[in-house]
Amino acid sequence: MSKLILVRHGQSEWNLANRFTGWWDVDLTEKGEEEAREAGELMKVKGVLPTTAFTSVQKRAIKTLNIALEACDRLWIPVTRDWHLNERHYGGLTGLNKQETRDRHGDEQVHIWRRSFDVPPPEMEQGSEFEMADDPRYAEIEVPRTESLKLTIERVLPYWQSAILPKLGEGETVIISAHGNSLRALVKHLSDISDEEITGLEIPTGQPIVYEFDGTQVAGERYYLKDG
Amino acid sequence: MSKLILVRHGQSEWNLANRFTGWWDVDLTEKGEEEAREAGELMKVKGVLPTTAFTSVQKRAIKTLNIALEACDRLWIPVTRDWHLNERHYGGLTGLNKQETRDRHGDEQVHIWRRSFDVPPPEMEQGSEFEMADDPRYAEIEVPRTESLKLTIERVLPYWQSAILPKLGEGETVIISAHGNSLRALVKHLSDISDEEITGLEIPTGQPIVYEFDGTQVAGERYYLKDG
Repeated sequence: MSKLILVRHGQSEWNLANRFTGWWDVDLTEKGEEEAREAGELMKVKGVLPTTAFTSVQKRAIKTLNIALEACDRLWIPVTRDWHLNERHYGGLTGLNKQETRDRHGDEQVHIWRRSFDVPPPEMEQGSEFEMADDPRYAEIEVPRTESLKLTIERVLPYWQSAILPKLGEGETVIISAHGNSLRALVKHLSDISDEEITGLEIPTGQPIVYEFDGTQVAGERYYLKDG
Repeated sequence: MSKLILVRHGQSEWNLANRFTGWWDVDLTEKGEEEAREAGELMKVKGVLPTTAFTSVQKRAIKTLNIALEACDRLWIPVTRDWHLNERHYGGLTGLNKQETRDRHGDEQVHIWRRSFDVPPPEMEQGSEFEMADDPRYAEIEVPRTESLKLTIERVLPYWQSAILPKLGEGETVIISAHGNSLRALVKHLSDISDEEITGLEIPTGQPIVYEFDGTQVAGERYYLKDG
């Protein structure tokens, strides 16, 4: 039996400001760092210690991972950073807070974007201050201009299949430190959740979720490590 | 032209206490963290930004790297951790401070160990409190019981040749965050320093040293990034 640990990054500056973040690279707040530390301490107490790690190329997820690994004395394990685990790209909503989004697009439209599985927000405008296309970390890919949850899943799952699942098959204890929507993509797949239901599923920050595996097959339902 | 950046970890708890550390996994002090941050800020100011990173499996080097990469906004680059870059193993001296070492072994013997290229300290005793053999990070290797500088070089250089040098050949800007003696091994090789001279060469903590490369060939002498 091997284990998969999913951790959503701790509170970020824009979680706090209630702004759509997506691919924009905001930092953790102090509370976010504390959440990460507690996640690592919980892994240590429970004796569920990762042997290999995956994260996005976004600071809030990488720092959550680094802090959690330090807290469980596993800074030395291999870590793979990959953009496929990035947060969903919120397109033209990036940088807007809830009120600005409502003012600009209307309550009804915002509700549709929030709850829709496959309707992406408007594309990010060319020359937006939140453009990431020139960022050297994305030099070899085409940065999306917007993503629905469906599109997010379509880039997360092939990476899961090719890079992460084989590690579980080898008996590793895998930790993935990522984002609300890239983790939704995984939970939808692993727990077989419908398109309708998944948009309403909230993944709490800094709270390790565990799946047990028998080879490359999920064995049983996910649980919070704190309850396990 | 590609660049190699060498950084010795910032001050550790046992640098401060003046104890032989070797493979024992001590943490950075606050001053050590500050040194790491300054190293990263210097890389940012100078525009010498790593595209790939190597470090040991020891906390003080990994944390120095993480802090420096954050300070130059490069947390997202690939990082490879490998025990070949670990500090020299100080054998039976591990944990002793200068005075204890002198009391136990005599001034003359201590001087020999300090300045000798190929005389290793006594082996670590079986059952020593500083034994690392059961540490899971070393599950697949035989932990040395002691190392001379010569023995350290004999494990650092093959790793350099096979894992790191090819990255420079590909044009990457490589950072290595490591230790006094694993970095001495590299500087001896790259600057062609004699066995006699190298034992007296002090590599300052948190001070990035740069070598420029033309393909896989060193081009010119090393310099401190602050002076470059």
